[in-house]
Amino acid sequence: MPHFFILDVKSDQRVKFIDITAWVRECSAGSGVSEGTAVIFVPHTTAGITINENADPSVPRDIIAGLAGMVPDWGDYLHAEGNSDAHLKASLLGSSVTVIIKDGRPLLGTWQGIFFCEFDGPRNRKVWLNIAGV
Amino acid sequence: MPHFFILDVKSDQRVKFIDITAWVRECSAGSGVSEGTAVIFVPHTTAGITINENADPSVPRDIIAGLAGMVPDWGDYLHAEGNSDAHLKASLLGSSVTVIIKDGRPLLGTWQGIFFCEFDGPRNRKVWLNIAGV
Amino acid sequence: MPHFFILDVKSDQRVKFIDITAWVRECSAGSGVSEGTAVIFVPHTTAGITINENADPSVPRDIIAGLAGMVPDWGDYLHAEGNSDAHLKASLLGSSVTVIIKDGRPLLGTWQGIFFCEFDGPRNRKVWLNIAGV
Repeated sequence: MPHFFILDVKSDQRVKFIDITAWVRECSAGSGVSEGTAVIFVPHTTAGITINENADPSVPRDIIAGLAGMVPDWGDYLHAEGNSDAHLKASLLGSSVTVIIKDGRPLLGTWQGIFFCEFDGPRNRKVWLNIAGV
Repeated sequence: MPHFFILDVKSDQRVKFIDITAWVRECSAGSGVSEGTAVIFVPHTTAGITINENADPSVPRDIIAGLAGMVPDWGDYLHAEGNSDAHLKASLLGSSVTVIIKDGRPLLGTWQGIFFCEFDGPRNRKVWLNIAGV
Repeated sequence: MPHFFILDVKSDQRVKFIDITAWVRECSAGSGVSEGTAVIFVPHTTAGITINENADPSVPRDIIAGLAGMVPDWGDYLHAEGNSDAHLKASLLGSSVTVIIKDGRPLLGTWQGIFFCEFDGPRNRKVWLNIAGV
């Protein structure tokens, strides 16, 4: 039987990356799964999720700046809510990440952390986590 | 034993997003899996898959327009078939999405739908779906 | 019990795509899993992974060129290591791909291969592979 968890995330800016690695570690420990996989899923269309460096805060800041340079806030867009840039950024980073669980822990590289990526905040958001294995 | 399904998709334009959410729901119901995960995989190199808003058709339209602005049709490309933009867009959105199955249903946010993303049509395409769980 | 494998990858240029499809096939055969899924995960923050055409070497070359056009080497970046472009490219392509295993083999389209994507080499890197199923 897989284990399912929900996290409430509150973003306080329009664009903001929020480190949720500690929560994934806690859920993993709580699940009792030793070997398996975790799917971390964002049920929103103007937010995404990514794995990147969580040691130097300049890294998520630079990813946000780089995305802003690639995806104009206002372009050849029709969607009336004016947040088409946020929808595109959500699709570029994706709605889920998958992490291997080994020896009861999410297996991440030395510098890797898991970030919830707000692109159209501030908002109250959810993150879903499914852990399956033995 | 996981459950495997194939969908035939026919795109009628060079670039087109096709909503396949209803098919994923049907397969999920047919699989009899109550708790698990679904992997939806596109076996092509000039098409991808994404999860985004399927309420307002302007959203996929704007994602297509935004990608076209970021990735020029013709640039510093060597590939002789002239569809390098389509290969890059396929890698940016990715070849698969993973969705959590809960209570026998794919767990999606209120506004989320699953789109097959044609970047070099019109073509006849396939989508593969694997549902695993209990 | 899932099966876990590690690959050592050595990149010899700053940006380089390395085809690891044959390794995934070998591990899949070695795992004895007939039906399931494989998660291929890159534990680095300046490298990613993608599935795209591995027949014509111009395709990965053009994806690299297209990404370089979209993401400037030097932009409005603060991260002191000067490799913010590599962090952003890693998040754009993603840290993992998931492949369906069927009849004991990773199920890929005719033209698809799996590429480890170095964005800040040359370096010694790892790729992790988890295969689960029956």
